[in-house]
Amino acid sequence: MSFEKIDQLCRKLEALEHSLAILGADEATHMAVGGGEKRAEAMSALAGMHHARATAPEIADWIDTAQQEALNEDQRAALHEFRRQYTNMTCLPTEFVERQTTARLRSEQLWRDLRPKNDWLSFLPALDGIVALVREEAELRAAATGLDRYDALMEQYDPGHRAIDIAPVFSELKTFLKGFVPEALAVQEERLAKNPLRPLSGVYPIDKQRELGLAMMAAVGFDFTHGSLSVSHHPFCGGVPTDVRITTRYKTSDFLSALMGVLHETGHAMYEQNLPKPWSHWPLGKARGMAMHESQSLFVEKQLGRNPAFWEWALPLIEQYLGEKWSKDEILAHVHWVERGLIRVDADEVTYPLHVILRFELEQELVSGRLKAADVPEAWDAKMRDYLGLSTIDTPQDGPMQDVHWPSGAFGYFPSYTLGAMMAAQQWAALEKLHPSVDDEIAKGKFDTVTTWRRDKIWSQGSRWSTPELMERATGEKLNAAHFTAHLKKRYGA
Amino acid sequence: MSFEKIDQLCRKLEALEHSLAILGADEATHMAVGGGEKRAEAMSALAGMHHARATAPEIADWIDTAQQEALNEDQRAALHEFRRQYTNMTCLPTEFVERQTTARLRSEQLWRDLRPKNDWLSFLPALDGIVALVREEAELRAAATGLDRYDALMEQYDPGHRAIDIAPVFSELKTFLKGFVPEALAVQEERLAKNPLRPLSGVYPIDKQRELGLAMMAAVGFDFTHGSLSVSHHPFCGGVPTDVRITTRYKTSDFLSALMGVLHETGHAMYEQNLPKPWSHWPLGKARGMAMHESQSLFVEKQLGRNPAFWEWALPLIEQYLGEKWSKDEILAHVHWVERGLIRVDADEVTYPLHVILRFELEQELVSGRLKAADVPEAWDAKMRDYLGLSTIDTPQDGPMQDVHWPSGAFGYFPSYTLGAMMAAQQWAALEKLHPSVDDEIAKGKFDTVTTWRRDKIWSQGSRWSTPELMERATGEKLNAAHFTAHLKKRYGA
Ligand SMILES: [Zn+2]
Ligand SMILES: [Zn+2]
Repeated sequence: MSFEKIDQLCRKLEALEHSLAILGADEATHMAVGGGEKRAEAMSALAGMHHARATAPEIADWIDTAQQEALNEDQRAALHEFRRQYTNMTCLPTEFVERQTTARLRSEQLWRDLRPKNDWLSFLPALDGIVALVREEAELRAAATGLDRYDALMEQYDPGHRAIDIAPVFSELKTFLKGFVPEALAVQEERLAKNPLRPLSGVYPIDKQRELGLAMMAAVGFDFTHGSLSVSHHPFCGGVPTDVRITTRYKTSDFLSALMGVLHETGHAMYEQNLPKPWSHWPLGKARGMAMHESQSLFVEKQLGRNPAFWEWALPLIEQYLGEKWSKDEILAHVHWVERGLIRVDADEVTYPLHVILRFELEQELVSGRLKAADVPEAWDAKMRDYLGLSTIDTPQDGPMQDVHWPSGAFGYFPSYTLGAMMAAQQWAALEKLHPSVDDEIAKGKFDTVTTWRRDKIWSQGSRWSTPELMERATGEKLNAAHFTAHLKKRYGA
Repeated sequence: MSFEKIDQLCRKLEALEHSLAILGADEATHMAVGGGEKRAEAMSALAGMHHARATAPEIADWIDTAQQEALNEDQRAALHEFRRQYTNMTCLPTEFVERQTTARLRSEQLWRDLRPKNDWLSFLPALDGIVALVREEAELRAAATGLDRYDALMEQYDPGHRAIDIAPVFSELKTFLKGFVPEALAVQEERLAKNPLRPLSGVYPIDKQRELGLAMMAAVGFDFTHGSLSVSHHPFCGGVPTDVRITTRYKTSDFLSALMGVLHETGHAMYEQNLPKPWSHWPLGKARGMAMHESQSLFVEKQLGRNPAFWEWALPLIEQYLGEKWSKDEILAHVHWVERGLIRVDADEVTYPLHVILRFELEQELVSGRLKAADVPEAWDAKMRDYLGLSTIDTPQDGPMQDVHWPSGAFGYFPSYTLGAMMAAQQWAALEKLHPSVDDEIAKGKFDTVTTWRRDKIWSQGSRWSTPELMERATGEKLNAAHFTAHLKKRYGA
């Protein structure tokens, strides 16, 4: 039976993915400094074996034959998603992939070197090459999937989202935020005039911060029989669903940065831990995509972790673990801090979407050919001035050179961040509508209602539906900006 | 070029071995408890891929063709060792390997269940089956290698050692020990009568014990840019040469057990860290075998770590890290403790070889068919009474059921432990002859002379020579019992 053949193949692929995931997590957390070269060789060889097996030409026949076999509904869904991913993985000719891999590696290395030097002009030829390759890739993916070119790129990260649907939602959000950012900042100013910010100036021992983080992870629902927390330079959620590795990074002067990071990664981790186990080796049993994944991390970090009710429960824990008493107003002043800035990754939830929308707009133009790489700094600067009142014309390192995405050829990824934020707000609204007293539960440190809803509606669904379908089934409506703007108004508005 | 094809294959195999080694170390040190099932699946799939690639039939032709190619001396040596390993890996038919794997897994599971129950009779049918399979395996390996049957089994673990050479050395050692154990015990009694044992009764914090261990590892020559120390239930040396993972297990009431374990694993680790790097992917670049590996761990644990000179340097460290003053006599009374016991893994360096020789003698009889599994308890008991004056007839769990080796089908492995101990003593003697003042250096915590000798003579040689050849080249004489017995007499004698 062809379905059975694919099932066996999926088990082999899962073994390789498991190995790559653990090797990757280990590299960032426990590897000796001199182990990198051999680790890179091993992982690249394993990735090669995975690619060769996953894209073998005979699989196309297996899919076609399996389609004719007597399959139940789950199997049909599994086969459907398998075909989608096989198409996405096989639509680029080997010759192209090799050219692109070389160019990406060079461009990323160059970027690491030139960004600290603020040297846009030396970087431009490399980016020019990357953009040309991305246009070629978009053509190839569009031809294979029947999608528009930019959509075909997004489809890798965020299956089912189309620019034609996203653009109006982003546009509405942008219009809202251009007015709302000044309002939120004014509210903050007013509050600060009355209550000056209490600085985070203690010395918070790392082992105490770690214990606090573990206590919060356990309360929120992280399963420690299937995961752990450790330390790495860049926090991440890695590993495998049966053994999720999350990391954070501690500063002794500030307990909030590590804690918020832990909550964010806990959101990612719980998605992985609660995926449908019988299908773990098939694409069907995996998380839906980048936007949905980010909605799960932002749900925990922003919808739960920055919710005032959450802090009613959390403040006594801060006192218990760190020995410091904070009032709700004092902590919320930090947790709800808003600030215009140049750097996306440092942005708060109010200003963040403007950074993303800027990139979404520019990369569509880059892919379509309407914008040239050489003209990016001016275009970027114009939008930054328009959206956030800041200029980057003299500091490309804090403008179009700030992210690794473009230098590494990842176009179509940026929207996921803000789609995730909007999806999290819409999920929260749906949940709160069903359970109007959920805030009271959270204030008592009870997260069962939240977890049950998320497990039923999102996690248990794996990749059964496209991202928009999954959202609509979970929340009863299509993705829209209203819940997110309402959330911001409630939390930051006048 | 065929040699080049094998080189490429070896790189792929190295990547899989790297992955398996890191996944294995990770499982014992950092894996979440619920991650075991998927980890086992992943590792078994990777092991299967490794086996399929390493034993592919076309490799036989590559070897033959490469033999005709213009190769330099290193390449010839690499090809020679590659062929030896290929023969060893391919000499069992798949049908046999599958039967054996199933039987081994069942027998090992049964043993884990029945050993605590002291239930020999229920275990006997499984062991009977294992012995039958081992006889079959020995025939197959003998046919493929041209070796005697027991030698063909040993060849997997300890290339080049033959029973005909080992038996007289073991026999001499046995005769010596039967007289020497009572002597060493009498010496110990006499000393205790004058100076009662100072018990290890402090509370030694684990973080302090860890720091002490790290300090000793660094002094002895462990390279922390290519390795690390962590904790696991069963101490081991794993990982890869560029990132060696050693572990220990701490008791707060006894700092010596963890420390001696750390020294032992450091000995294994330094062998791995100093293998010839350009050949790391070929068998030629790997450690020689179990006996040679054990000689390296025992060299550090017994020849260095239980050397009175070592403790002149080490005692101030104990005081510095643990805050306790010990005199050399007080600590040596523990470090040189001798005791007759039933359990091999708990034995000291004086009694240990008798445990091994007993097994060596019995397993040769089992493989040849002269001994039946059913008769093992009586045969074991007779030898235990003869060699150590102890009976195991009522406690098979502390007799023939104590080790995992036979239940898991590993016959021919046991000799390595005592061969390693003898080889370490002979290596020490050769080194001391060349550097008569090496004890003075060790008393100052200087290990450069020792490390340089070991690197030149052993580590840098990889698998270029058989175990006996490597020993003879390193020490200038064939393996013999004289150095080991002289070592015991000097350390434990009247
Ligand atoms: Zn995230
Ligand atoms: Zn050992």
